[in-house]
Amino acid sequence: MRIALDAMGGDRAPGVTVQGALLAAQEGVEVLLVGEEHRLREELARLGGRLPIHHAPDWIRMEEHATEVRKRRESSIWVALELLKRGEVDAVVSMGHTGATMAAALFVLGRVKGVERPALLVEFPSLKGRTFLLDGGANADCRPPFLVQFAAMGLAYAEASGVPSPRVGLLSIGEEEGKGNALTQETYPLLREALGPRFFGNVEGRDIFLGTAEVVVTDGFTGNVALKLAEGEAKVLFTWIKEAFAASPWARLGAFLARGALRRVKARVDPSQYGAMPLLGVEGAVFIGHGSADALAVKNALLRARALVGAGLLTRVREALAALHV
Amino acid sequence: MRIALDAMGGDRAPGVTVQGALLAAQEGVEVLLVGEEHRLREELARLGGRLPIHHAPDWIRMEEHATEVRKRRESSIWVALELLKRGEVDAVVSMGHTGATMAAALFVLGRVKGVERPALLVEFPSLKGRTFLLDGGANADCRPPFLVQFAAMGLAYAEASGVPSPRVGLLSIGEEEGKGNALTQETYPLLREALGPRFFGNVEGRDIFLGTAEVVVTDGFTGNVALKLAEGEAKVLFTWIKEAFAASPWARLGAFLARGALRRVKARVDPSQYGAMPLLGVEGAVFIGHGSADALAVKNALLRARALVGAGLLTRVREALAALHV
Repeated sequence: MRIALDAMGGDRAPGVTVQGALLAAQEGVEVLLVGEEHRLREELARLGGRLPIHHAPDWIRMEEHATEVRKRRESSIWVALELLKRGEVDAVVSMGHTGATMAAALFVLGRVKGVERPALLVEFPSLKGRTFLLDGGANADCRPPFLVQFAAMGLAYAEASGVPSPRVGLLSIGEEEGKGNALTQETYPLLREALGPRFFGNVEGRDIFLGTAEVVVTDGFTGNVALKLAEGEAKVLFTWIKEAFAASPWARLGAFLARGALRRVKARVDPSQYGAMPLLGVEGAVFIGHGSADALAVKNALLRARALVGAGLLTRVREALAALHV
Repeated sequence: MRIALDAMGGDRAPGVTVQGALLAAQEGVEVLLVGEEHRLREELARLGGRLPIHHAPDWIRMEEHATEVRKRRESSIWVALELLKRGEVDAVVSMGHTGATMAAALFVLGRVKGVERPALLVEFPSLKGRTFLLDGGANADCRPPFLVQFAAMGLAYAEASGVPSPRVGLLSIGEEEGKGNALTQETYPLLREALGPRFFGNVEGRDIFLGTAEVVVTDGFTGNVALKLAEGEAKVLFTWIKEAFAASPWARLGAFLARGALRRVKARVDPSQYGAMPLLGVEGAVFIGHGSADALAVKNALLRARALVGAGLLTRVREALAALHV
């Protein structure tokens, strides 16, 4: 199995992408770097490593418009997706422009049959393990059938990740059927009909961290607000804890003694642990990470892509969608 | 100034409501208990305190339907709102059924001129102090003008709370104008026109805790998801910190030494510190708290209601709405 890395994508590419690829290669992942050959050779030389390179002369800058990608057939992300389309690699990982990657993936790979809108899946740490939420931001406005398709894809992803008997919660306000907004009210009966006992019912914001249902579906607007809010809150809470610990000599000593414990909690909520979000619903395994990714996040994204492709992610998504329409 | 407390509202009423009222009275708040006289006398006797009582024989149970309240003119919340309408009290505080309280307030008090939909204002702690977000859940589906009205009310509330030169952020995904969903795209130019330099532009989920803009407007669905998510995340993070601290003798000692510091951070994110959310846009000062409120939350809600009514909250809201339509 071979994974193409868009080595020019991300705020700190190609430095951290090449470094992350080398870390993943040490753990046995077969990585193909896609990007400007000369610069990638330089990075490899600097880091003293060796990896195969597929040349792509152009790349999409983070500040460019997503639609730009359609005219840029020699950009690293486009070339990487073409390799996936032709079966020369088994997955594509990019820390680059999210919108451009989604647009290019849709255009080059097309959609899985039965999918109207591909969605980004994001992971939250929860009391019970992990919560898989989609859509994480690909579709700001959604219609009820999109959420049913997200649910099927989320179940397929959770199963590929090794979660036994996952269930789907519909993110809403209020637990009873009929609570929520127009979208959730229309979606509720569709999910019940499509999923039967695998539909948990409505869940609320707090259930994401409590882990009430393993898969949570919502529109991409609410999902992206939830993702960014959760990241911001964790960051601010740890800032306050650090400040509070600095406030007295006893607290400073306490913080020193408990530093390992605190570091473990911080790692648990650190987005770089997850590496990248899968774009589900396109005809190929595509993973998109934070533009601010560090080498650890790049490595984790590559490891994760390998694990999920190995678990038959794409086949499972196709089957889940086909089963919706029987 | 006199504040009516719906003494029968809340999961643990009238025990915690009477206790909270007595705590507030010790700090000079003039509280009028509204509810079943016999039960309130019993509670007062048990706690050894004295407070005036206005009898109301009925009350809305937490599990009842919100619409029920219209037929229950002798319920504690309805009677309390009638007292406010007649000018016999200056504010109403309830820890009871949120939906029933909103419905009764709309019916008994009516709307401030220029307000299409009253909104709940919720507070988040932020790096810079506090973020005031509305709507916190009163209106699941919103149209663009509602958000402009929320913005005006939020600014009035922030000013009454002593925030100098507050600005309004529109909760969205992506910072640039044009990013977001259909609602935010239509709302953006309206906010710019209505607020001028007091409109900050789009903010993202992370900005709520970072404190980028003092007032954040969004629809009640997204707002309520954000509120519950934030509460759930804080709860889960502190659970993990506690677990991590218990894992080794050194960490346990460290946690002991730093316990005061950690307690202060926890208090900073504890919803009971805020006591209750104002329902803005009705013709009267109404504050609605968590059903799970404890005596401290009841006390804080009463103190806060007094401070805001004293700062001319209602007049400020009326003027802010009138200024929108000049």
